[in-house]
Amino acid sequence: MIKQKYAIGVDFGTESARAVLVSIDDGQEIATAVHVYEDGVIDEVLPATGAELPPDFALQNPADYLEALHTTIPAVLDASGVAAEDVIGLGTDFTACTMLPTDREGAPLCMKPEWRDNPYTWIKLWKHHAAQPEANRLNAIASERGEKWLSRYGGKISSEWLIPKIWETLNKAPEVYAAADRFMEAADWIVMQLTGEEKRNACTAGYKAIWSKRDGYPSGDFFTALDPRLGHVVNEKLSRTIYPIGERAGSLTPRMAELTGLPAGIAVAVGNVDAHVSVPAATVVEPGRMVIIMGTSNCHMVLGTEEKRVPGMCGVVEDGIIPTYFGYEAGQSCVGDHFAWFVDNCVPTDYTEEARSREISIHQLLEQKAATQRPGEHGLVALDWWNGNRSVLVDVDLTGLLLGSTLSTKPEDIYRALIEATAFGTRVIIEAFEDNGVKVDEIVACGGLPDKNRLLMQIYSDVTGRDIKVAAAKQTGGLGSAMFGAVAAGRAAGGYDTIVEAAQRMAHLKDVVYRPDKEHTEVYNRIYAEYLQLHDYFGLGANDVMKRLKKLRQEVLAGTA
Amino acid sequence: MIKQKYAIGVDFGTESARAVLVSIDDGQEIATAVHVYEDGVIDEVLPATGAELPPDFALQNPADYLEALHTTIPAVLDASGVAAEDVIGLGTDFTACTMLPTDREGAPLCMKPEWRDNPYTWIKLWKHHAAQPEANRLNAIASERGEKWLSRYGGKISSEWLIPKIWETLNKAPEVYAAADRFMEAADWIVMQLTGEEKRNACTAGYKAIWSKRDGYPSGDFFTALDPRLGHVVNEKLSRTIYPIGERAGSLTPRMAELTGLPAGIAVAVGNVDAHVSVPAATVVEPGRMVIIMGTSNCHMVLGTEEKRVPGMCGVVEDGIIPTYFGYEAGQSCVGDHFAWFVDNCVPTDYTEEARSREISIHQLLEQKAATQRPGEHGLVALDWWNGNRSVLVDVDLTGLLLGSTLSTKPEDIYRALIEATAFGTRVIIEAFEDNGVKVDEIVACGGLPDKNRLLMQIYSDVTGRDIKVAAAKQTGGLGSAMFGAVAAGRAAGGYDTIVEAAQRMAHLKDVVYRPDKEHTEVYNRIYAEYLQLHDYFGLGANDVMKRLKKLRQEVLAGTA
Repeated sequence: MIKQKYAIGVDFGTESARAVLVSIDDGQEIATAVHVYEDGVIDEVLPATGAELPPDFALQNPADYLEALHTTIPAVLDASGVAAEDVIGLGTDFTACTMLPTDREGAPLCMKPEWRDNPYTWIKLWKHHAAQPEANRLNAIASERGEKWLSRYGGKISSEWLIPKIWETLNKAPEVYAAADRFMEAADWIVMQLTGEEKRNACTAGYKAIWSKRDGYPSGDFFTALDPRLGHVVNEKLSRTIYPIGERAGSLTPRMAELTGLPAGIAVAVGNVDAHVSVPAATVVEPGRMVIIMGTSNCHMVLGTEEKRVPGMCGVVEDGIIPTYFGYEAGQSCVGDHFAWFVDNCVPTDYTEEARSREISIHQLLEQKAATQRPGEHGLVALDWWNGNRSVLVDVDLTGLLLGSTLSTKPEDIYRALIEATAFGTRVIIEAFEDNGVKVDEIVACGGLPDKNRLLMQIYSDVTGRDIKVAAAKQTGGLGSAMFGAVAAGRAAGGYDTIVEAAQRMAHLKDVVYRPDKEHTEVYNRIYAEYLQLHDYFGLGANDVMKRLKKLRQEVLAGTA
Repeated sequence: MIKQKYAIGVDFGTESARAVLVSIDDGQEIATAVHVYEDGVIDEVLPATGAELPPDFALQNPADYLEALHTTIPAVLDASGVAAEDVIGLGTDFTACTMLPTDREGAPLCMKPEWRDNPYTWIKLWKHHAAQPEANRLNAIASERGEKWLSRYGGKISSEWLIPKIWETLNKAPEVYAAADRFMEAADWIVMQLTGEEKRNACTAGYKAIWSKRDGYPSGDFFTALDPRLGHVVNEKLSRTIYPIGERAGSLTPRMAELTGLPAGIAVAVGNVDAHVSVPAATVVEPGRMVIIMGTSNCHMVLGTEEKRVPGMCGVVEDGIIPTYFGYEAGQSCVGDHFAWFVDNCVPTDYTEEARSREISIHQLLEQKAATQRPGEHGLVALDWWNGNRSVLVDVDLTGLLLGSTLSTKPEDIYRALIEATAFGTRVIIEAFEDNGVKVDEIVACGGLPDKNRLLMQIYSDVTGRDIKVAAAKQTGGLGSAMFGAVAAGRAAGGYDTIVEAAQRMAHLKDVVYRPDKEHTEVYNRIYAEYLQLHDYFGLGANDVMKRLKKLRQEVLAGTA
């Protein structure tokens, strides 16, 4: 009898990190442990000094990441009873672009006493939005110059991504830029801590740093056009050596072995991104099946065999999700957040009391009330832009719209309309892929929402006209990372040689399948046509009222209106 | 010393009637009494039989009106301590078009045993909406024939008005039509009860029955085109003798003197409409000053010296409000109702609890929170069409819109946006009047809202860029009716010869004046431009999404989608 082997995945999220210990054989989750970051999202004052941060800042403390490794890995070993020597591989995934400046040894500048009081030395979290001016300028220049890589990103580079964030540091804190030996994704930095080696991964490089396997980074001319001081940024502050997802980054160092309780020398996978690592964990290792990670926002991922340009997608990266495929990503910036906003701000007291007396959540109450309706019955349509539009319009200045209210409109009507709006938003994304040659035959959902709201899942199926399956794993991030850990270990060590093999054994679907109701789909086709007309009218420039009101608001708040 | 004289006004509302006893000298309210109708609004089952009513029905029982006279007039005499012989005049006002079929003696058919079980013999209340098919057909035929009176009503006759309601009875209950000696406005019927004389008033005839002083009723050809059976409806069922507002209808009959406790023979004014009678009670007896009655809905009235055609107005009637002037009416169908809907459906528990703990209403809490904002700060704009649009688009199938929401949007933001939307709606109406030669220099507000919400008043002033004064009287309906009672009595009896004199003495304004803040007006000009663009886009046919969703909803509910 072959002794069972295990892998560990560590999923670094926004507020906490979670380690998952799984069986190599079938992917079964044996133990899980969560560490909530002590400093969490730093968006008000710098912990080191108590100094107030500028607007739109969102920082993190790298000590929190190390502490997460130190607490969660021993915890899962302990809880599972698995012997440390039976763990053969370790994988990690991270939010992105979450980036930091380091010294030559890879030590974060913010951990050095002389730099601790400078906020630009701290980790900029993915949702740090202070680099918007740099992003705007970058997009304008790239567009002017006709940079052909721009279309790999749906025509726009986000302020959340690496180059705007680096440029912001150069503009606001040139001394930090100068002192930084390099800027790294936290995803790569954590792997460097584990292995002692800088092995930058293709996923963050491709999706967040404008790199591609075939063309590398943008030209020095382009960077010079941004700012002459950036002319050599790639050579000076980044690296041109990028490793495909699925590679082994190196071996666990003795120091990290001591910190984690794992054996020194076991395989560590190259870094990865939380959303992308979920794709194989949701059983998807081939084209045609879209994975949607449904949580506060939606992230849509699908594989293709060719590089197609899809308007408004977040990015297409060769080897970025599954080796040998082009990985496509799109997203919706407001899904679970949308419903949470509604529950926090718009649900009257009698509903709250009904939910309390029936011992269900307000979400459940609204879902139950909304579920008795037929599509089209509430007479509403909404544009799901409460947090801007990430795909396909790629415009953070768009805002929400609700149309069709009457004096008979009830809270559950609006709740249902908001769910439908996010489903229409997903359909727009799917149609953009299909119209441009990237097939989407089926959907596999994962993340927090699918288990919570059956009505939502059925509406997504009815609106998109597609079957929706659900990943079995609750923690697709951790499972995916563990799967890549098993691949980094390789078959010889008891793991797998490819992620495809790993997915066949370790990833599973639930039994439930949501199938579109044909009559519902027909009604939704009519409402979707209305959604599209409003989407294009307000999103494509015919009426820029949303932007003008946002600008007016800023003027009023600044006292310049 | 001249002995003080008094007049009584009785204001017949939707749910109740209110008598007000006022001093002739200065209009001071001495006593008031309310009678809530026993049968109220009859919209579910017929009281006589318990039979379920068809959809969109809203009936009343004339016995409730007589009971109101019987209880409220003795009550105000009693409460005031005024001697009945010192009351020199009585005026009344009514909701309209609230109409009924009677026999030759003016007895309501519904009070006769043989007719009590037929809903078409009962009083159709103003908000009885079952005559919409007849109204649609009437408008189509009038428009086809180029009937020039149509433009006096902004291009559309409402289903709430007299001719559609009569035609509905002819279609649905021809036996009732045949049995009816005449159809009367309740406003005229109550005066007939008081005086024994049929004296139809110019206000309801003009605004609700397509009559004008210069042209009379539409032609027999037109009525024949509607339905050959209606060819002689005016001569057979109405009357061509119409009395201007301000005339004496007759004297109180001995029977009614006994019922009310008033002296037989005192002057009774011709009937009037609740909104219109408020105009002189708000001190307005000349052009240029618009009266807005602000309550569940807004009613806008202004006087002119010429007959102008204003798109979308409800009507223009010579002698209809103040003798010798053309009285213009426009309206918004959803104002106080709008805010009530919001409070009932969209205010979260922590707000309810805060209001409770601070012992203020939720409206007050929202007003306080919204009042700390500057115009434009919430970034929202709404179309105030939760109950359709009465002016200037005259389209019941339009629905509400809220645009600009983000995840930071708070309940008070939406509340303020809804208030602003109704203010923009009022500005559209004012501009329609001014663009067509009817001046609006100043606004006088009355009704329930002005005292309740100072923020709302300031926003209306800022949005319209006009001073807003507030009528001193809480019950402008009752005061206005009493004023017309004093005019019906005449100077010789201790009253006044004209409503202008009566207004100078009996009507007053509060000290408060809301003046536009120039900076606020400038910001609101920008948001109003957005409102207008949305108003025209959704209201004038560029995108009929509201109508299509409403139609889809009806199909879904009917199972035909």
